[in-house]
Amino acid sequence: MSDRPLDERHNPWTTRTTEVRYENPWIRVEHNTVLNPAGNEGIYGVVRFKNVAVGIIPVDDEGNIWMVGQYRYPHSRYSWEIPEGGSPLGTPTLESAKRELLEEVGIRARRWDHLLHIDLSNSVCDEVGEIWLARELEFTAAEPEETEELQVRKLPLELAYQGVLSGKYRDSMTVAGILRLKLMLEEERRG
Amino acid sequence: MSDRPLDERHNPWTTRTTEVRYENPWIRVEHNTVLNPAGNEGIYGVVRFKNVAVGIIPVDDEGNIWMVGQYRYPHSRYSWEIPEGGSPLGTPTLESAKRELLEEVGIRARRWDHLLHIDLSNSVCDEVGEIWLARELEFTAAEPEETEELQVRKLPLELAYQGVLSGKYRDSMTVAGILRLKLMLEEERRG
Repeated sequence: MSDRPLDERHNPWTTRTTEVRYENPWIRVEHNTVLNPAGNEGIYGVVRFKNVAVGIIPVDDEGNIWMVGQYRYPHSRYSWEIPEGGSPLGTPTLESAKRELLEEVGIRARRWDHLLHIDLSNSVCDEVGEIWLARELEFTAAEPEETEELQVRKLPLELAYQGVLSGKYRDSMTVAGILRLKLMLEEERRG
Repeated sequence: MSDRPLDERHNPWTTRTTEVRYENPWIRVEHNTVLNPAGNEGIYGVVRFKNVAVGIIPVDDEGNIWMVGQYRYPHSRYSWEIPEGGSPLGTPTLESAKRELLEEVGIRARRWDHLLHIDLSNSVCDEVGEIWLARELEFTAAEPEETEELQVRKLPLELAYQGVLSGKYRDSMTVAGILRLKLMLEEERRG
């Protein structure tokens, strides 16, 4: 490291060739040959996502939130999470958040606030996420997609927070969203 | 959804075939043909990671933390983050955390506490992460790898927290780690 600050707009990597090695409706895997920041030859495999990840925390006036349980195929295990879904690139994420919350949980919200921007896994993926807070809730019937076999559970935020600390809840958008909401509600309470 | 709770150990997906479509030293991309939870035919592309993501927050007695800046190739932009690195599957992540903190930031810590488990991007990736808190710090010289062109910055946790809220800092492990540490220090302060 030098003592002189870097120009943070400058890309220190040089891409020589890019080849698409895998593609499906959700991701595209690119194999790049590169010169790394030291100027030496290397490769960089990048997973490009066709959707923005959208997470929603619905919270009621008593401090309860709703979580969704589903089997996560890549991890081969069950996972309880805040309601989440994919928002096609170009679609406003708030629109997708409203749709997911209604489809998965059967909730409409009158008040929406943006909670967090998040880069989910930036070493090889370009996926970005947006987390929204939903308040002033109305309840209707959920209509999940057929690829989803979902359970829905209402629980106090405090219990969800304890589950994050214990490692029971591990999904990154869930962890970040619950921690953020807990700080927000504590700040509101202190005034 | 039925009212009867699901057996959460049961995998509702059936995998018919698995083919490796791309592999490099860091990831392996598998294309699966499946029956989805509704019993219909589909595909599932899974990105398997060869390392656990390890994040470290070094914090001093005055509540300062250290962040690392680097250009993130997949996002084509600069990113300030807590120190992070890959821990080969099977290696204790604390060991990797100690090595990364020393190499990237030139810090040794006498006190280590586990902060969070995190599944970074569970829709198609199986990557897991572990975040460690480093305290009682000793300072020496950093020795980054040649693929890394890093800057290091010391800043108050409060400033890092404001950067998370504003979207300046977006890396998932950084967001989760900073929010978790802020809650922890507030709880310690209240006793």
